[in-house]
Amino acid sequence: MVAEILGVGTELLLGDIANTNAQFMSKVLAGLGISVYGHTAVGDNAARLTAALEYAFGKADMVVACGGLGPTQDDITKEVSAAYFGKEMVLHEPSWQAVQRRFGGRVLPENAVRNAMVPAGSIILPNNHGSAPGICIEENGKILILLPGPPSELEPMFMEYAVPFLRKKTVLAFISRTLKIVGLGESRVETILQDLIAAQTNPTIAPYAKLTEVALRITAAAPTDEAAHELIAPVATEIYQRIGPHIYGEDNDSMAKIILDSLEKSGQTLAIAESCTGGLLTSAFVDIPGSSKNLLEGVVTYSNNAKTARLGIDEDLLRTHGAVSPQVAAAMAEGIAKTSGAAIGISTTGIAGPDGGTDEKPIGLVYIGLHIAGKPTQTKELRTIGGRNEIRIRAVVSAMDMLRLAMEEQQSAL
Amino acid sequence: MVAEILGVGTELLLGDIANTNAQFMSKVLAGLGISVYGHTAVGDNAARLTAALEYAFGKADMVVACGGLGPTQDDITKEVSAAYFGKEMVLHEPSWQAVQRRFGGRVLPENAVRNAMVPAGSIILPNNHGSAPGICIEENGKILILLPGPPSELEPMFMEYAVPFLRKKTVLAFISRTLKIVGLGESRVETILQDLIAAQTNPTIAPYAKLTEVALRITAAAPTDEAAHELIAPVATEIYQRIGPHIYGEDNDSMAKIILDSLEKSGQTLAIAESCTGGLLTSAFVDIPGSSKNLLEGVVTYSNNAKTARLGIDEDLLRTHGAVSPQVAAAMAEGIAKTSGAAIGISTTGIAGPDGGTDEKPIGLVYIGLHIAGKPTQTKELRTIGGRNEIRIRAVVSAMDMLRLAMEEQQSAL
Repeated sequence: MVAEILGVGTELLLGDIANTNAQFMSKVLAGLGISVYGHTAVGDNAARLTAALEYAFGKADMVVACGGLGPTQDDITKEVSAAYFGKEMVLHEPSWQAVQRRFGGRVLPENAVRNAMVPAGSIILPNNHGSAPGICIEENGKILILLPGPPSELEPMFMEYAVPFLRKKTVLAFISRTLKIVGLGESRVETILQDLIAAQTNPTIAPYAKLTEVALRITAAAPTDEAAHELIAPVATEIYQRIGPHIYGEDNDSMAKIILDSLEKSGQTLAIAESCTGGLLTSAFVDIPGSSKNLLEGVVTYSNNAKTARLGIDEDLLRTHGAVSPQVAAAMAEGIAKTSGAAIGISTTGIAGPDGGTDEKPIGLVYIGLHIAGKPTQTKELRTIGGRNEIRIRAVVSAMDMLRLAMEEQQSAL
Repeated sequence: MVAEILGVGTELLLGDIANTNAQFMSKVLAGLGISVYGHTAVGDNAARLTAALEYAFGKADMVVACGGLGPTQDDITKEVSAAYFGKEMVLHEPSWQAVQRRFGGRVLPENAVRNAMVPAGSIILPNNHGSAPGICIEENGKILILLPGPPSELEPMFMEYAVPFLRKKTVLAFISRTLKIVGLGESRVETILQDLIAAQTNPTIAPYAKLTEVALRITAAAPTDEAAHELIAPVATEIYQRIGPHIYGEDNDSMAKIILDSLEKSGQTLAIAESCTGGLLTSAFVDIPGSSKNLLEGVVTYSNNAKTARLGIDEDLLRTHGAVSPQVAAAMAEGIAKTSGAAIGISTTGIAGPDGGTDEKPIGLVYIGLHIAGKPTQTKELRTIGGRNEIRIRAVVSAMDMLRLAMEEQQSAL
């Protein structure tokens, strides 16, 4: 099957946003063995959108269009698509009920019902993260899938509803397993796995670098899902043998969730003291539903005064070693554990820039402290590069990884 | 002039990279008053690239294509473009010398000379950050500009050579001002400004909804930049009169930066106590370089124990009203100000879900507390919808907006 991805929205043509939806779906479709021959983006203009649909279906059996499903006047993708296939627009009652539920008891905007209007005869893809449902029209060998523009709605809808639908259309099962790697760069991963990657046929192995991790995708094609999984298994095992400790999880695993699960299992509580990461580390845990069970609290002790008052850190220690030092990182971890009553305290202190760097303590230098009740406090030094935000994000991941490894070690010592 | 942007490269269609070049150039072209009618991306395939050029020139006078200018076998954009215009490929001697200079004394790769091969009669755009020069072909009222794919080469080349060339082609200057709005949804903004938007000719007014704000772009075309600014000014003034307090800034302003600047001006310090936002609010301020001057600290008092121990909140208050209540929000704001010694304390407490909601206190209910030394403590109730993260992000923006308005009021009272 050949696919074309069509982005609809004047904001794309004005450069307000990048077409990350096209990238996301291309990657997933490639994993399904569906060839994407092109991307197109057009504005919210009926004549040009119709022309784009004609152009896209001239090249492809399937068009995935995203954007313009909302209820306002400039959202015309559904109407133009209905006209393209010669369909009426009709009310989809379950979607209308879902919109009403979403608004609870509050007054619905006048145009809210437009969310639930769909081309007659469509297959509806529920939107669990927004108001506009997705739509699939299948006719005369052509498939048109319409998805909402916001990635927070498009991505889960695509994975939960479009992918299972498309799987049925492809003869071979394409199965991917993604190993998620921290603490090793892309080139390093490629070097260590060079022979495996070079020998790739089925499964293929492809590394993708992200800001703080490398995703290694192993993809196999086989007549059945099970057979594809069997092709992947020995390759994954070999990769685990070579870089196991750097693989923190697979597919949709999140490091924060893995750590919270370990804490839940061991019955330990966590408290966090942040300086340079300024709340990002705590927030990464609070992101996870149910985190309050094991996360007692976080403090952002940005000033030296706060470090002393909140964490009981000795002023002499700060004077002698400076706030960015392994000694202060350790004292912060111990201080937050002690003052919060948590079994585990973790801390960050570093220089995120753009000012404050010196030759001895350059921008990008971060210390992480980890205190686990009954064990000696550990510290870790991170020297990284990039802008203020990059440095902060890398420090967060590095701190989480230190805690993850400590939890694994503790687990295996039992 | 109408333009189309064409991305060339199989890596786009595999989803390995997002087409950020299209976004970058769209934004710059909009600023030049050149309408971009579409984006297209195709792989490194001669037949499909030729078809894409035909499609693009069917819609536009000018096509800007990027990618595929390099020296390897799969780089075919120059050859396909030359064939499209019926031109020979010739050696461009200055580019060939530039490539040799770039390699210094080192041995040149065998195919290096392909970098300097160009369609006969092209205008050459020098590449100061790589080996492949840019190319401009102008014929029969069509303009084709070819640029290298890597953004580090494309962006400076586009700004230094393509923009001055295009400026000569456009008669009018196009100037935009973007007003950034919080606390009003897109539909509400449209309703209030309906008559202005409907009357739009020059300048035009266009609202764009983002997760937590609405951007309202006012764009004018005039013979000079100054004249365009003069057309925008009265429209902006009228909009400020209607929704002024909701406009927190313009263009690249950030709300956190605006608040930190006000604090710096008034000499006040800030401390933050978060529950449901879990560090995100503090982190929004720490994002801004120099925030440590006025931000003393943040605490994430997720548990009731932490609220009592860190902020001195009365256990009775928690029992009587519950942690998610205006009373506890107020006590948190007062508690963090008192314990940190900050002039201003701000707090969040709410139910981010997916569990923990009741009929009386549903998911999405958030209370914000704001204590400013010498004034009565204020609280604000937010009832919002969406997933856990959306709720948390909306609570952060709502809290920042409450603080921004209080700072403005304080300023105007002086």
